[in-house]
Amino acid sequence: MDFKPILSAKRDGKPLDELTIQSMVRAYVDGQIPDYQMSAWLMAVFFRGLDPTERIALTSAMWKSGVSLPRVRPEAFRIDKHSTGGVGDKTSLILVPLVIATANRVLGPGSVEIPMISGRTLGHTGGTLDKLESVPGFSPQIDLARAHALMVENGFFMMGQTADLVPADRLLYSLRDATCTVESIGLMVSSILSKKLAETLDGIIFDVKFGGGAFLPEIEQARNVGRALLDTARALGVSAKVVITSMDAPLGVAIGNRLEVEECHNFLMGNAAIDEGLALVTLTLAAEMLAMASRGKLTVTEALMECRRELETPAPGQWFVRMFEAQGGDWERFQKESWSRSTDRFKLNANTNGYVKRIDARRLGQIVQNMGGGRKTKEDTVDLDVGVVLRKKVGDQVRKGDTLLIAHHRPGRRGSFREEAANLTEAIEVVPEPTTPIDWVKEVMV
Amino acid sequence: MDFKPILSAKRDGKPLDELTIQSMVRAYVDGQIPDYQMSAWLMAVFFRGLDPTERIALTSAMWKSGVSLPRVRPEAFRIDKHSTGGVGDKTSLILVPLVIATANRVLGPGSVEIPMISGRTLGHTGGTLDKLESVPGFSPQIDLARAHALMVENGFFMMGQTADLVPADRLLYSLRDATCTVESIGLMVSSILSKKLAETLDGIIFDVKFGGGAFLPEIEQARNVGRALLDTARALGVSAKVVITSMDAPLGVAIGNRLEVEECHNFLMGNAAIDEGLALVTLTLAAEMLAMASRGKLTVTEALMECRRELETPAPGQWFVRMFEAQGGDWERFQKESWSRSTDRFKLNANTNGYVKRIDARRLGQIVQNMGGGRKTKEDTVDLDVGVVLRKKVGDQVRKGDTLLIAHHRPGRRGSFREEAANLTEAIEVVPEPTTPIDWVKEVMV
Repeated sequence: MDFKPILSAKRDGKPLDELTIQSMVRAYVDGQIPDYQMSAWLMAVFFRGLDPTERIALTSAMWKSGVSLPRVRPEAFRIDKHSTGGVGDKTSLILVPLVIATANRVLGPGSVEIPMISGRTLGHTGGTLDKLESVPGFSPQIDLARAHALMVENGFFMMGQTADLVPADRLLYSLRDATCTVESIGLMVSSILSKKLAETLDGIIFDVKFGGGAFLPEIEQARNVGRALLDTARALGVSAKVVITSMDAPLGVAIGNRLEVEECHNFLMGNAAIDEGLALVTLTLAAEMLAMASRGKLTVTEALMECRRELETPAPGQWFVRMFEAQGGDWERFQKESWSRSTDRFKLNANTNGYVKRIDARRLGQIVQNMGGGRKTKEDTVDLDVGVVLRKKVGDQVRKGDTLLIAHHRPGRRGSFREEAANLTEAIEVVPEPTTPIDWVKEVMV
Repeated sequence: MDFKPILSAKRDGKPLDELTIQSMVRAYVDGQIPDYQMSAWLMAVFFRGLDPTERIALTSAMWKSGVSLPRVRPEAFRIDKHSTGGVGDKTSLILVPLVIATANRVLGPGSVEIPMISGRTLGHTGGTLDKLESVPGFSPQIDLARAHALMVENGFFMMGQTADLVPADRLLYSLRDATCTVESIGLMVSSILSKKLAETLDGIIFDVKFGGGAFLPEIEQARNVGRALLDTARALGVSAKVVITSMDAPLGVAIGNRLEVEECHNFLMGNAAIDEGLALVTLTLAAEMLAMASRGKLTVTEALMECRRELETPAPGQWFVRMFEAQGGDWERFQKESWSRSTDRFKLNANTNGYVKRIDARRLGQIVQNMGGGRKTKEDTVDLDVGVVLRKKVGDQVRKGDTLLIAHHRPGRRGSFREEAANLTEAIEVVPEPTTPIDWVKEVMV
């Protein structure tokens, strides 16, 4: 394929038609366009953008570069949630059991299907698959046949990407990373949506995060991404809604794989004080998912009430444990080992009276990564036990000597923890005047 | 090397410092930066440009990625000419013998050295090496030792790129071509100049062409390239001047390798009517070269008069033949075989009275390429005998039945000549009203 005319057209800001984009994606997946040409195209797209037609065509072509999941129950509403990623963002682990439990009660058994295909921790942000794997024995490496069986049995599954799903995105994703073109809205939207469309969805809720710990620092950028996600999803036949949420501080109290699973379990069991930010974001997303899946039977407010009511029952917690056990996880062993098995704990105490003004989500994400809890490159292995638990949140009053956070670190790990301890003190700021808590849910885009 | 910070800085329009550019070029040549990252950088440069500091640093780093030619006579002024390329652009073949002959007479034997490292025909434009090779036996594949010996003997040589000269440009050049970033002024200037600097020059004259048959359609673009060439060359210690010339029609009358060598010989021998455009451009460049090489002894006007005077002697023609024979060329055989040995001739005649308004240089270049006289890809072989000879030039009056041009084509060549014959009729336009000849030399930038 002679790729240069397509490349120079994009370079010069001329729109590419649907057929051109289709053949381009097919040729690239077939190895007929070398990476060094595609990477120049990606950079040209970074500068020129993709217009709505191009974005829709690229998303569709990427989606169709691989197989799509077959439907299971024709009458079920198949829905998923996608988050643009953040620090302490563990909502998927709560949403799946909560929405399944509530929908089974309110809309009928098997009325909702959640085919959850997730990603891994990379850079300062966490990934659902690593969190799930902190339960010993759990495996997200299931094939499409097993995924189908799990869907029949439970109405959901948790899996990682496979080679036959959206190969175009797998190739383009690593190239975007290597070429610093991840931030292009058009490329971001087509990457996110092509993967979700392969789940054969009826609807999707997007959690688009902005702020210091998010990929998009400014709310205006989040709105632009949200608008593009909405329009593209709808153009390709999927109902969609966008919730814009803050990532100025970590979501919830735990950052780190095992610690976050514990936090989710506590949340569903009502075992511990529930973090308000996590509750607000999770319940907003759950209510949107349930209302959409009800096909007009429930308003969002009614759906929210049903989800709250469901949290007073043991069902979501039971589904949570089932989520792990259905894919080989040994929940009992996870609990026996308790949190911070063989890690050391470091307490950071307040050295003054005052109020928490700022908790630097990105910095904390990087500290957890440095402690071994994340990946710098895709090849790194992850220490599932290390992490940070916040004891104070933005807006909280503190007294000198109060514990601000606890770091769970691995003794004897290469690289000194002392450095991270110093970083930790800079990640949290206490000021004399009262401060305002974070406004977690900024708006819902329809 | 972690190239991403450099890539994202350029993407965001942040200037790169000299040291960064140096290490980048070194790492790329050493294979530590993959092509797919460098190509994204090239596209980012296409959009963001290179500021003067970056341009100078890149040129210098590319230059120093390989060896430079050693000096031969310390007192000689070493000078070269570079053309941005065109159709029928054969000035190098005239300039070398003319300037050497004139300088030897006026400034003294060995006073000027011309180390000519040239390129090949590609796309619709011609290349000096292929033209030279139409003389049987001539070889531009000489090593640096042989080049040195030729410089001692004659004061010039004609050679192609070697692996040890400017490897960074060899790698970047093909990548620029594949990624549609050839048009970036900064990349263009660093590519041109790094190769010339490796000749260890004292001075250089740039022939920057604009118009339909040039890489730069608009004169304003040519001026920008010219200004960047001047500033960069001077910043790196080389005297420079830019002549802006038109490429709205082919230069001279012949297009095609053997035909152009014949035209140059005729020009130097006074054997045939001398084309005014070719004479004007060549003598302007020759006078600039001689004046610069005289280190202030001659004004450009005086240098021009000396060159004109030299053309009345047999010396330039003798140097012309020596240029081929010094590198194995059999001039006698070339002459015996005469032009258009085994080619067929096609005459295009005027079908109306009028005046020539337009001769489409790019189209004619492409026709010659299609007839086998050029390359679509670097791997193609070139038919040295085919080409087009113009019998009328823009501004000429024609009568119905006059021959406008003669095409020399290869009988039995794959692909029909009939198609090219049809193209030829569209490449030349005759109108009823008198037309203006082309203004070949637009300006000299100092």
